[in-house]
Amino acid sequence: MIGADEMTTRSKNGKVRVIIENVQPQVDSGLYPAKRTLGERVDVTADIFGDGHDHIRAQVMYKEAGSTVWNVLEMNHLGNDHWLGSFTVTNKVPYVFTVRAWIDHFDTWFDGFKKKAAAHVDVKVELMEGVEFLKVLAKDDSRLLSSASRLQEEYTKAVAYVLSDEFARLVHDHPLVEHEATFEKELTVVVEHKKANFSAWYELFPRSASLDGKHGTFKDVIKLLPRVAAMGFDVLYLPPIHPIGKVNRKGKNNNVTSQPGEPGSPWAIGSDEGGHKAVHPELGTLDDYRRLIAEAKRLGIDIALDLAFQCAPDHPYVKEHPEWFKQRPDGSIQYAENPPKKYQDIYPFNFETDQWNELWEELKSVILFWIENGVKVFRVDNPHTKPIPFWAWAIAEVNKVHPDIIFLAEAFTRPKIMASLAKVGYTQSYTYFTWRVSKGEIIEYMNELVHGNSRNYFRPNFWPNTPDILPFHVQHQGENIFILRFALAATLSSNYGIYGPAYEFYDNVPMQGKEEYFNSEKYEVKKYDWKKTNRMTDIITMVNAARKNHPALQSTWNIQFCSIEDPNMLAFIKTTDDLSDSILVVVNLDPYAKHSGYVQVPRQRLKITEGINLKLHDLITDEYYTWTQEWNYVELDPYKMPFHLFKIEVHESFR
Amino acid sequence: MIGADEMTTRSKNGKVRVIIENVQPQVDSGLYPAKRTLGERVDVTADIFGDGHDHIRAQVMYKEAGSTVWNVLEMNHLGNDHWLGSFTVTNKVPYVFTVRAWIDHFDTWFDGFKKKAAAHVDVKVELMEGVEFLKVLAKDDSRLLSSASRLQEEYTKAVAYVLSDEFARLVHDHPLVEHEATFEKELTVVVEHKKANFSAWYELFPRSASLDGKHGTFKDVIKLLPRVAAMGFDVLYLPPIHPIGKVNRKGKNNNVTSQPGEPGSPWAIGSDEGGHKAVHPELGTLDDYRRLIAEAKRLGIDIALDLAFQCAPDHPYVKEHPEWFKQRPDGSIQYAENPPKKYQDIYPFNFETDQWNELWEELKSVILFWIENGVKVFRVDNPHTKPIPFWAWAIAEVNKVHPDIIFLAEAFTRPKIMASLAKVGYTQSYTYFTWRVSKGEIIEYMNELVHGNSRNYFRPNFWPNTPDILPFHVQHQGENIFILRFALAATLSSNYGIYGPAYEFYDNVPMQGKEEYFNSEKYEVKKYDWKKTNRMTDIITMVNAARKNHPALQSTWNIQFCSIEDPNMLAFIKTTDDLSDSILVVVNLDPYAKHSGYVQVPRQRLKITEGINLKLHDLITDEYYTWTQEWNYVELDPYKMPFHLFKIEVHESFR
Repeated sequence: MIGADEMTTRSKNGKVRVIIENVQPQVDSGLYPAKRTLGERVDVTADIFGDGHDHIRAQVMYKEAGSTVWNVLEMNHLGNDHWLGSFTVTNKVPYVFTVRAWIDHFDTWFDGFKKKAAAHVDVKVELMEGVEFLKVLAKDDSRLLSSASRLQEEYTKAVAYVLSDEFARLVHDHPLVEHEATFEKELTVVVEHKKANFSAWYELFPRSASLDGKHGTFKDVIKLLPRVAAMGFDVLYLPPIHPIGKVNRKGKNNNVTSQPGEPGSPWAIGSDEGGHKAVHPELGTLDDYRRLIAEAKRLGIDIALDLAFQCAPDHPYVKEHPEWFKQRPDGSIQYAENPPKKYQDIYPFNFETDQWNELWEELKSVILFWIENGVKVFRVDNPHTKPIPFWAWAIAEVNKVHPDIIFLAEAFTRPKIMASLAKVGYTQSYTYFTWRVSKGEIIEYMNELVHGNSRNYFRPNFWPNTPDILPFHVQHQGENIFILRFALAATLSSNYGIYGPAYEFYDNVPMQGKEEYFNSEKYEVKKYDWKKTNRMTDIITMVNAARKNHPALQSTWNIQFCSIEDPNMLAFIKTTDDLSDSILVVVNLDPYAKHSGYVQVPRQRLKITEGINLKLHDLITDEYYTWTQEWNYVELDPYKMPFHLFKIEVHESFR
Repeated sequence: MIGADEMTTRSKNGKVRVIIENVQPQVDSGLYPAKRTLGERVDVTADIFGDGHDHIRAQVMYKEAGSTVWNVLEMNHLGNDHWLGSFTVTNKVPYVFTVRAWIDHFDTWFDGFKKKAAAHVDVKVELMEGVEFLKVLAKDDSRLLSSASRLQEEYTKAVAYVLSDEFARLVHDHPLVEHEATFEKELTVVVEHKKANFSAWYELFPRSASLDGKHGTFKDVIKLLPRVAAMGFDVLYLPPIHPIGKVNRKGKNNNVTSQPGEPGSPWAIGSDEGGHKAVHPELGTLDDYRRLIAEAKRLGIDIALDLAFQCAPDHPYVKEHPEWFKQRPDGSIQYAENPPKKYQDIYPFNFETDQWNELWEELKSVILFWIENGVKVFRVDNPHTKPIPFWAWAIAEVNKVHPDIIFLAEAFTRPKIMASLAKVGYTQSYTYFTWRVSKGEIIEYMNELVHGNSRNYFRPNFWPNTPDILPFHVQHQGENIFILRFALAATLSSNYGIYGPAYEFYDNVPMQGKEEYFNSEKYEVKKYDWKKTNRMTDIITMVNAARKNHPALQSTWNIQFCSIEDPNMLAFIKTTDDLSDSILVVVNLDPYAKHSGYVQVPRQRLKITEGINLKLHDLITDEYYTWTQEWNYVELDPYKMPFHLFKIEVHESFR
């Protein structure tokens, strides 16, 4: 039943009796690498078994790609033939790993010896066998040779020696490797820089950056940088900064015609003033933009560029490369549409053009152009409307030269497409968090992200709003839900972002019946009172500070939900692997009413073996609590503060 | 992020925009083939998607291995980018399949056209595009060319034509295949004969086959064949028929010493009278055994041989090939043990011998010897105590020459090992059914077997008892539980078996505290009154007749549980794909008390679109019922009959 080739391979050495299956992390049978960031743990698991009752030992073999030396790591049996070994990636290079396993006859013998001795069975022959094993293992190791001679001493002394702790350690430390099986594939883990996994994004339209309501400029954005930095953000994302199309320009509230002077949508890219490598003159010059990048960098902020691969009708590409667009039989160029809706201000590229190769190269050159001008973070607009193989190629090409670039996929689309974009190379992805509101929805979604296979390639970035999305549950709502949705985004996920001014200043007015903003900034210049801060600003600042100070909040993968019986109360814990930092978050999901409940302390996770004695410090309200019970009362009034952000310390004598 | 090789492959033709993932059935990334039997359906599923909103079409490509011509089968979108296409395997050869998919611009255009026309948008240019598509598709097809000319007629007529059913059929029938993606692997389905999936086994010890209590012979077994055939069994399985070891022979009730004249365990194979290719003289001659096979065959019964690859101390192999066994330092040969227990009547082979190759060849020759003597079915004793790679090789070797052999794995062990034996080639496997007793346990286990990935390689064979296992729930129990456990085994699974006389005659006496028989037939000759039949015999006969007459009962994979609210009542339906045969089974799992409940008719499965009008015929009690409601009352008194076995007929006007 098994293929002849496979059969032949397996029977090359008939003494190999161990089977290794289902080695993880593995993405699409190894077609794509698993992803980690610097300093993260890789939990390698496998199903490993053999015939009979002999004892198996298993090891993870791992190395940096290109190295010739394998690191070797003992695996532990978790039960049901499932094994685990963990290593940490400490260099920003791809790692290669596999698993090997064998039947350890020495260990098997040792286990049998102990059982027979306990049952008072004569073990004379077993002692002789032990001597043989030790001699095979010893080669020239004098310690093992002397151990062998101790097995040849007087019977009761020899038996006592084999039953000693010293001998057990010896067996553990000297695996007898024979006829080992090795998993048929070497799998890859790529390692990215820490920011891929830990970032806080603030989005603003540079044209709304002025203090006086006039069309803003890069210089105005530079003036806002200290404000953004003070709040604790490390990515400032600006919608497209390129010349905006003048033909079929959209007016206020997405009107199909615009009035003279209306600024249009920045996503309608290109005009006689230039295309994807140019800067919108009203925002300033390329030099201004570079200065913005440099100033931001000084404050620890990356400026994210919006990569929107589409053209306004007057984009220079349309004249220079009409072959990159779809020509209709009447000689016109195909505009974007979702029948019967038309988007006549946008021409999509025709990726099926015969000149696809030139088109791919040009788009790659756009990315490289901005990287050369200092950009390290790209937010990619609707990547799911461009071919996935194009992204696979373009991101791989960029990574070859610039390995530290972040690509955030703005694909609010069907799950398998979002997954595929992440697999082929996107660093981070927008998510369904925007619409996960109830306790059940949040727990289910987090468990899918963290415990599903997508954990190995899909890095979530949680956004409570975007310029495209004012979710129903926030519409016409007050401060409380803004605060609690922010707190969820920033603590559930180590990557998160907000469409800043609209969120900070509680813009809650939708287009009737839609999840879109009324008087959307996408089509007009807004005036914000950038000098103002409010309660939201303060909370953002405190939460971002907590994220920076607490490594436990710098990962999405370390979450564990805690039992709390109220359906409006959500509680979860995040800890570092070494438990040196532990955070407990409790959120009241009801913005209108006080709720309370008893939170169960996750003893196992905190490695609390005896009594409970936890010191809790709320990093927002600066209150202190002591918990000494397994279940602890928590009450949250959303009008006071809808969440707790506790630093937890376990009294050491109880670990 | 994606490997450079993969990236290059993908970018060979940049116009390919469709991604195909997760093609099923696929076992361990294609390392092993999926299994089907002749006439079974293969449901090929895949995740298929592209960028944007263009319409995708997908096809399963399949062929017999070695053929150069692909069959092509349209797939349907089930939702969430998951697609299905099904084909039936009609020849007993391996099939190869893969999936291809592409964006169909003609279909995309057609869909847009309909939406625009419905919204009263001008579609003049769209008509021109339609003409272009039809000309590309037409080549010399005059029908398509005339269709193109109709699109060039007067506007309203042309629009009406495109909106006609005729045109919709045309679009459906003429996929525009361009830039198709093909899944990167060709996967294999092996096709076995029908008996692999549908068999009823009766096990008896030939030494207990006589009518007078003397040591039975093959001739006695021949006399029992009409009885076994009348009950409807088609496999008669005899424990090992080889000479029984005389050294360290076990006595009654597994006593470590035997009295003179005690027959020993047939699994302690080999003596001075011969080994695995010999016949136990007390049973008769090899000729007698061949005659038994021939007589059985005339009655539609296969004689199953027990393959127990282990030796009694006096097996000829021990002298002839001491190198196949493990030598201990004191010069003795290692007997079987599970410390501190010793099994000194059994020497296991040492599969790690340097002469493993010779050992493998000899064991293969044992299998081939019995096949040459007429055996087509093997029940393999404890295959999980021999190396899995050996089985992979041995079964593949046998299959090359004799493709219709059945190997049943007697591996009552951990799940991954049972799965692995099935993957590498075992035709059927013993299961945990023996211990799945409650409603929840049975439903969960069936769903795991039928809907889990193991469906593609693991064929269950359900046994309510074996000579090794008298389950706790049957011990000291009466007729009712024997009947209901039999009914479950024979209707849940299309392969099942019983350790016959003990089951038929209600042997319910265990070794104290164990799931083993007291006075086990493994160690002594039993006298049965083979002339007797009883209620159990009659029910077995009727159930086996129903299985033979009803194709719905000849598959395990077609089961669907029906809602019935009582926790003691289990109901399930089995149907053929074409619904020409439908069986409903209802079982009262409580052997002590009457239970009742309302069974929900599975309308969707039965394709009942309007009112319900079902005719039910109980094939055991010969009672008739008519059901006209969705929920229908059923009552089962275990002292009358603990189960219904209904043939269902749907009144045709309601389909």
